[in-house]
Amino acid sequence: MSQDRSKLRWNGWGWVARKDELAQRDDVWTWLAGELGMPALLATPARPLEEISLPPSTLALPHRQELGAIVGASQLRETIAERAFHARGRSYRDLLHLRAGDLAEAPDAVIYPRGTEEVLAILALAAERRIAIIPFGGGTSLTDGVAAIRDEYESVVTLDLTEMDRIIAIDLTSHTAEIEAGIYGPALEGALKAKGLTVGHASRSFEFSTLGGWIAAGGGDPIGPQQDWLSSMKLATPTGLIDTAQGRTGADLTSLIIGSEGQFGIITEATIALKPLPQTCHLHAYLFADFPTGLAALRAIRQEGCGPTMLRLCDSEETRVLGAFQLLGKKRGMMDRLGEHFRGAQGLTGKPCRMIAGFEGDASVIAFQRRRFEAVASRYHAMRQGRADSDAPRRFQGPYIRDSLLERAVGVENFEVSAHWSKLQTVYETTHAALDAVLRETAPREGAHGIVLCRVRHATPSSATLAFTAIFPRAVGADLEQAGKIEAAAFQAMLSGGGTPHHSPATAAPLLHNNGEGAVTVWRALKQHLDPKGVLAPGGAIS
Amino acid sequence: MSQDRSKLRWNGWGWVARKDELAQRDDVWTWLAGELGMPALLATPARPLEEISLPPSTLALPHRQELGAIVGASQLRETIAERAFHARGRSYRDLLHLRAGDLAEAPDAVIYPRGTEEVLAILALAAERRIAIIPFGGGTSLTDGVAAIRDEYESVVTLDLTEMDRIIAIDLTSHTAEIEAGIYGPALEGALKAKGLTVGHASRSFEFSTLGGWIAAGGGDPIGPQQDWLSSMKLATPTGLIDTAQGRTGADLTSLIIGSEGQFGIITEATIALKPLPQTCHLHAYLFADFPTGLAALRAIRQEGCGPTMLRLCDSEETRVLGAFQLLGKKRGMMDRLGEHFRGAQGLTGKPCRMIAGFEGDASVIAFQRRRFEAVASRYHAMRQGRADSDAPRRFQGPYIRDSLLERAVGVENFEVSAHWSKLQTVYETTHAALDAVLRETAPREGAHGIVLCRVRHATPSSATLAFTAIFPRAVGADLEQAGKIEAAAFQAMLSGGGTPHHSPATAAPLLHNNGEGAVTVWRALKQHLDPKGVLAPGGAIS
Repeated sequence: MSQDRSKLRWNGWGWVARKDELAQRDDVWTWLAGELGMPALLATPARPLEEISLPPSTLALPHRQELGAIVGASQLRETIAERAFHARGRSYRDLLHLRAGDLAEAPDAVIYPRGTEEVLAILALAAERRIAIIPFGGGTSLTDGVAAIRDEYESVVTLDLTEMDRIIAIDLTSHTAEIEAGIYGPALEGALKAKGLTVGHASRSFEFSTLGGWIAAGGGDPIGPQQDWLSSMKLATPTGLIDTAQGRTGADLTSLIIGSEGQFGIITEATIALKPLPQTCHLHAYLFADFPTGLAALRAIRQEGCGPTMLRLCDSEETRVLGAFQLLGKKRGMMDRLGEHFRGAQGLTGKPCRMIAGFEGDASVIAFQRRRFEAVASRYHAMRQGRADSDAPRRFQGPYIRDSLLERAVGVENFEVSAHWSKLQTVYETTHAALDAVLRETAPREGAHGIVLCRVRHATPSSATLAFTAIFPRAVGADLEQAGKIEAAAFQAMLSGGGTPHHSPATAAPLLHNNGEGAVTVWRALKQHLDPKGVLAPGGAIS
Repeated sequence: MSQDRSKLRWNGWGWVARKDELAQRDDVWTWLAGELGMPALLATPARPLEEISLPPSTLALPHRQELGAIVGASQLRETIAERAFHARGRSYRDLLHLRAGDLAEAPDAVIYPRGTEEVLAILALAAERRIAIIPFGGGTSLTDGVAAIRDEYESVVTLDLTEMDRIIAIDLTSHTAEIEAGIYGPALEGALKAKGLTVGHASRSFEFSTLGGWIAAGGGDPIGPQQDWLSSMKLATPTGLIDTAQGRTGADLTSLIIGSEGQFGIITEATIALKPLPQTCHLHAYLFADFPTGLAALRAIRQEGCGPTMLRLCDSEETRVLGAFQLLGKKRGMMDRLGEHFRGAQGLTGKPCRMIAGFEGDASVIAFQRRRFEAVASRYHAMRQGRADSDAPRRFQGPYIRDSLLERAVGVENFEVSAHWSKLQTVYETTHAALDAVLRETAPREGAHGIVLCRVRHATPSSATLAFTAIFPRAVGADLEQAGKIEAAAFQAMLSGGGTPHHSPATAAPLLHNNGEGAVTVWRALKQHLDPKGVLAPGGAIS
């Protein structure tokens, strides 16, 4: 069930065969240039793989033989395609490197184990031979953890888990499943759907990421969604196996492994809690007069325990830009004009922002929840916009669009930050202002600037997450420097406002210090205990 | 707001002044003797404190002065009353020791810090002087963690947190509060109630336990309730302070500290998530034909996402015994006979079991949730029994009754075990059978036996917790031996059925091995890092 890697882009997102619909849309590029204060957006194509030469592999023959003896020779692969595909993750910074043809970080080889025992054997051997091991699932990592520091290592081998994708058992009585960690999102949900069950988790990277990756890269939300569906897991470390299944009576390691980015070990199997597939799932859209009003409504809805299973609020700029984008090239019909008139009549002429609420269950549940939800929303003068389509296709499209933008000298950086409600507005304003300023400052020409979009996700009674998207004219030739400045400014602003930034290349190192010396020394002690030779993902956040 | 310790029982539960209503109820003792297969239940009074001599304090004068210099001389207390109150926790085994006048485990002194900085200073000094430090909140611990191993230590000092009970801040926007860990349950809920908020947590020990204790003794349920309301905490360790507030972006220490029983450090402050006080809370009672049917209904209700905020199912024996107890001394009226007739008519003549469902919110929410709940319950032929009173008073009464029973040669042991639904019935049967056998085997006379009650709590879509109460005729003179056999049998049975036993003196040590070598070595490494001199609660689970 594992994806055919030859059909995936080595230097971008998703399927090679997927057509870039935006490339030919001159109206889009003209409009976007205007939005960014640029006269035009030039083509900035990536270097093709054929033009690039990889550094020679440093994996010594005896080590190759020893690794091959563990997994079988055909499971140790060293082709250019394999090494290029595994060279980096999929952060903006990663894409800049890959598109520029910089494969300095490519591993010497890729090893595909087919079971926990093999992973344990590989790690033990790697520790003895000083071979760095980079855990790799779908490879959509955003934290630079995939790129190894080579300095002190004999060689670097990527351990790819995607051939460990068996569904070991589905417990229909307990609604749980025991699954190998290398399974891709669609394969997992496909197998569960056949039993009437679902994880109910679909991030933007869902199609091209794995179960183990969801756990290893998780965390960040005050109550992480992983905690909701993760029952237990097996962690293979250079010093042995940890199975959290029996250790839930206190002093449990789960929260420590979630988000540990492969620094303590490799998640090889997980037992997850499932939900019945909902009978129906309806999305409804609402408009609020402005972002502070939308935020207040969102908070009230969660604190009063109203039932939408999904709630998302776009800020005014995201509402405007997405609206404008959708209208591009379409004739403005009577309905649009009517809608505008109607909004005007309700005083929403200013900077309206859009909320999407998802209701799940049978018809009576949906009706009841929606009535309660709308009773609260109407206190904040919400305007109904009717049923919305599932946003999964658009969400999955996001990373593809980033590639299209990169082709036309436009950059995209994403930042996520959680905060308690009392700090959320401040974190929003501080981060927005910092991004506006740094995008202007690092723009390639006077007067050019970025677009900063934000949506609010994972609203709980006490906190929510702000997901920022910064779209900006690339400083071609100084791309990495520009990205560094943007990341530093965003990170500083998220923290100073009192937020907790999520994983990103900007946060990996400085977050260590943000956690306070106490937590950092605990991590180091644990790393020293589980990976005393430091062969796991060297260069990652905790090494 | 801290409790006046002179008004609390040093060798039993709760307030000294509380009258033992059961003591004079001859009808109860006659009935209970019959239930236990005993001819009569003799008085077995506890030894009064005046008769008992404590071992002399080994706290050296210079150490006393150094500790006093940190907290002020009046905060270091060495009276007999203080030392006796802090000698042990409140497990059955603890009560046997205390009632027998065995105060060998009493600390040399009790220190009452008034802030995190003082706790850090005490721990640093203790590590230097090799003084064992026993963290102590309300003292209702069930795990023997309060009783220190003295062997290698200069002296043993209990660190009592109950004078650290300030509400530092309540964030009304985020529904969170920052609170010192030594606050008692009623003081905490009282302060929150004034703001229209609640933690919504009330265990049986609620009145006499503290916030820090709820966290330190937590864990056990597959998704522990602590995870629902605990936002972050400060942990003072001999090597410094850990604040989890900023460390939620992955590799978070929270789950490791929950249930760690003071082995890694002392929880001094916590930020907790709150709920609005519900407008109304209704309890409704239902009867099912037998326990397997009740279990099936409970599982369906949780898996279909019906809304009761509280759900509890008594097994047939608990239903019968509680019912019989309530009817003692009451004239059986027409309503009772009618009820019996009605149950008979519906085929519930066998071994019916009772479910209590709690519904919270406004009237419309309660009505909707109850309708959905009853639609599922009726598929399992539930019989409505009407509104039930809040069971909080009865729940809080439980530990007092244990004291009354101990006075009449009757012992009580509690065991909790979680399991996935597919294993729950087996865990129930295995544990029940093991308890029945061991109670018979350890009974003081031929033909005597115990009563084993069980209720199901914390039902989630994937798992639930079985809470067993074993009531048995004490083997007076060999009480500890009897308790040891009962605990060993229960523990073995809970594990062999595939369950995860919760904290208890029986589980503390063997659970270490149940967690697998991997987790155990991680705990040891962490303990070594945070408490290198091993002064925190020596004798506890991880030392």
